[in-house]
Amino acid sequence: MGSTGSIGTQTLQIAEEFPSQFKVVAMTAGRNLPLLAEQIKKHQPEIVAISEEDLIPKLKDLLKTTSNKGNSFKCPQIIGGKDGLNTVASWNSADIVVTGIVGCAGLLPTLSAIKAGKDIALANKETLIAAGPVVLPELKISGSQLLPADSEHSAIFQCLQGTPWEENARLSTGIPTPGLQGIQLTASGGAFRDWSIEELQKATIKDATSHPNWSMGKKITVDSATLMNKGLEVIEAHYLFGLDYKQIGIVIHPQSIIHSMIELSDSSVLAQLGWPDMKLPILYCLSWPKRLKTPWKSLNLSEVGELTFREPNTKKYPCMELAYSAGKEGGSMPAVLNAANEEAVALFLDEKIHFLDIPKLIEFTCEKHKKDFKEFPSLDDVLNVDQWARKIIRQEADRKKINFSQE
Amino acid sequence: MGSTGSIGTQTLQIAEEFPSQFKVVAMTAGRNLPLLAEQIKKHQPEIVAISEEDLIPKLKDLLKTTSNKGNSFKCPQIIGGKDGLNTVASWNSADIVVTGIVGCAGLLPTLSAIKAGKDIALANKETLIAAGPVVLPELKISGSQLLPADSEHSAIFQCLQGTPWEENARLSTGIPTPGLQGIQLTASGGAFRDWSIEELQKATIKDATSHPNWSMGKKITVDSATLMNKGLEVIEAHYLFGLDYKQIGIVIHPQSIIHSMIELSDSSVLAQLGWPDMKLPILYCLSWPKRLKTPWKSLNLSEVGELTFREPNTKKYPCMELAYSAGKEGGSMPAVLNAANEEAVALFLDEKIHFLDIPKLIEFTCEKHKKDFKEFPSLDDVLNVDQWARKIIRQEADRKKINFSQE
Repeated sequence: MGSTGSIGTQTLQIAEEFPSQFKVVAMTAGRNLPLLAEQIKKHQPEIVAISEEDLIPKLKDLLKTTSNKGNSFKCPQIIGGKDGLNTVASWNSADIVVTGIVGCAGLLPTLSAIKAGKDIALANKETLIAAGPVVLPELKISGSQLLPADSEHSAIFQCLQGTPWEENARLSTGIPTPGLQGIQLTASGGAFRDWSIEELQKATIKDATSHPNWSMGKKITVDSATLMNKGLEVIEAHYLFGLDYKQIGIVIHPQSIIHSMIELSDSSVLAQLGWPDMKLPILYCLSWPKRLKTPWKSLNLSEVGELTFREPNTKKYPCMELAYSAGKEGGSMPAVLNAANEEAVALFLDEKIHFLDIPKLIEFTCEKHKKDFKEFPSLDDVLNVDQWARKIIRQEADRKKINFSQE
Repeated sequence: MGSTGSIGTQTLQIAEEFPSQFKVVAMTAGRNLPLLAEQIKKHQPEIVAISEEDLIPKLKDLLKTTSNKGNSFKCPQIIGGKDGLNTVASWNSADIVVTGIVGCAGLLPTLSAIKAGKDIALANKETLIAAGPVVLPELKISGSQLLPADSEHSAIFQCLQGTPWEENARLSTGIPTPGLQGIQLTASGGAFRDWSIEELQKATIKDATSHPNWSMGKKITVDSATLMNKGLEVIEAHYLFGLDYKQIGIVIHPQSIIHSMIELSDSSVLAQLGWPDMKLPILYCLSWPKRLKTPWKSLNLSEVGELTFREPNTKKYPCMELAYSAGKEGGSMPAVLNAANEEAVALFLDEKIHFLDIPKLIEFTCEKHKKDFKEFPSLDDVLNVDQWARKIIRQEADRKKINFSQE
């Protein structure tokens, strides 16, 4: 799902590298029709869904006109709209669904996949962050396995294989792993790692969207610069691994070589390391519990030379604390945090607000939500507060702008 | 076994920290009778063996005269000599034997323990290095589990828990772990880490026995300075994990925080980290496959700040290459290497030879052994080449000394 995005294209690269292991049976994408058409030609899925129904004819045209390089090609079934996404998510012949749709848009199709009993390679953070209280019970009912496809949670998941966690069967059961003391999520520190708080006043979009280590989408790169990315991962880890917030730490590790760590009850620490490359965690979701043989470049620590670590500066990264607070609040609050962040980042990327306004707007919105807070939100509640938070962010940004222009 | 040594005292500290988990039922020691008497009073084992029989009356006197601090105290059975060590090693009420005797002296009692079906917390490297070809078949017969108690192999063992190695039941089966690509043993670089090759000419005993990170016995600290320690660990890893020598790497890591790493077939690297403290690997042997809760200080990477890595300089550390060569040769050669090293280090600590003579003497001895090399040595062969190698080292050191004085 989200085949033309960062996770999607890398997943398809893996499918290409391991043709005897994996077959792509279904795809969804947004508006990048030329790339989607190419992907369809190459992987020949059974079904494809595109979010906007009226783009279907255009896609069909593209499939007719582009060359298929001599391969026999059978045009897949092409459907559209939200129902289309849900149909693909629960497509019968799929064993595992890679959810690479960024943001809250990925939530409903992921829920469809879970309800259909599919295992999930979870790259869409929002599924757990916004809707943890809704998703967790569904996982119990369907028996779906949530496998983390992002680098940090994959690292934790890989390290946990060495603990007797299997006794509790699966992730996201809410039962803490026996012997697991806590985890440390590593953070590159993002684009502004070496900027002072004062210098952040001058941060531009270009500055915020240049990530030092990882090549990712714009939204996630900004989240990485605010450290909201890590804050959201903290909430995700809480739901995935059944951990209390005080068991989840963040450490700045600029080289992004240690992808995260677990601490066990006897003080032993296990870490997963590798070059910064999303393909490995995606592949592990697909091959788990086995590991496939890849020709990928071995990690060479002598070549890296040094790994450094420091505590994150909470003053510089207020989003991190906002995420911990929302997480501890629980219930509907993380959904508000997540939607507020998505909207604030969109406004920033649209040059409507300044980089430093992002945490201010989110804090304002979370604060405002307290009076309507729901401890046990339904799916509708989650979707409603999501819309509400976006509206509040836009209103508040507009109001501020008017204030500014009046000054 | 070896209760008054470095491993022994730390094992007893663990027994004290976890009185409801562990009971010390038997002990062996060498000549440190005052400490042994104290340990006996505290742990009240059923049986004690001391290597030299004629020290038994002295120990009994000590046990009578020292205060037992108001505790009721029943004097254990006390036996002596080599048979005594073997009796304790196979003592009926023991579940696991911690083999903390340094050097080839630990080999026979460890074999007794294996034959009696005891699980082994293996701190005595020589068991596998000198007698791998003898010990491995015995493990298969008795079903004993070899658990590595040294920091590096424990790290590998801990990381391997996360791989599907259980299918092959146990370590030291000679069957490689599926999905295990290779391992990297970390080396602090020892006392001469930051010395140039030229400066090594001036190395004294005091220099060689000051280890930067670990508090260990003198012999092992010198081995750490020559990197023979790491070379021997490479051979041990070969037997423990069923790895080919080309799958075993060494990386200099001065901070000794990453205790070793495994690389899996998909290029993922798992590492075990912790403060440099032997208690953790010893405890893991005793608690495996569980982990106990300890109050030990958590690793804090922000406090450590940086971890550095570099390739070992083979010119500076010729012992490392000697070990790889002997390991690849296999059969009786590692026994010769190990005995030659023990004897050369003893001569160095006795001020009979210079630090830089250690590798030269070992190389000379290994070269000389080639004509009597045994591919499948018996236990007697191992013990014989051990004695032979020691004799050659002493002879050659004497001859050289005469040469030097004639110059």
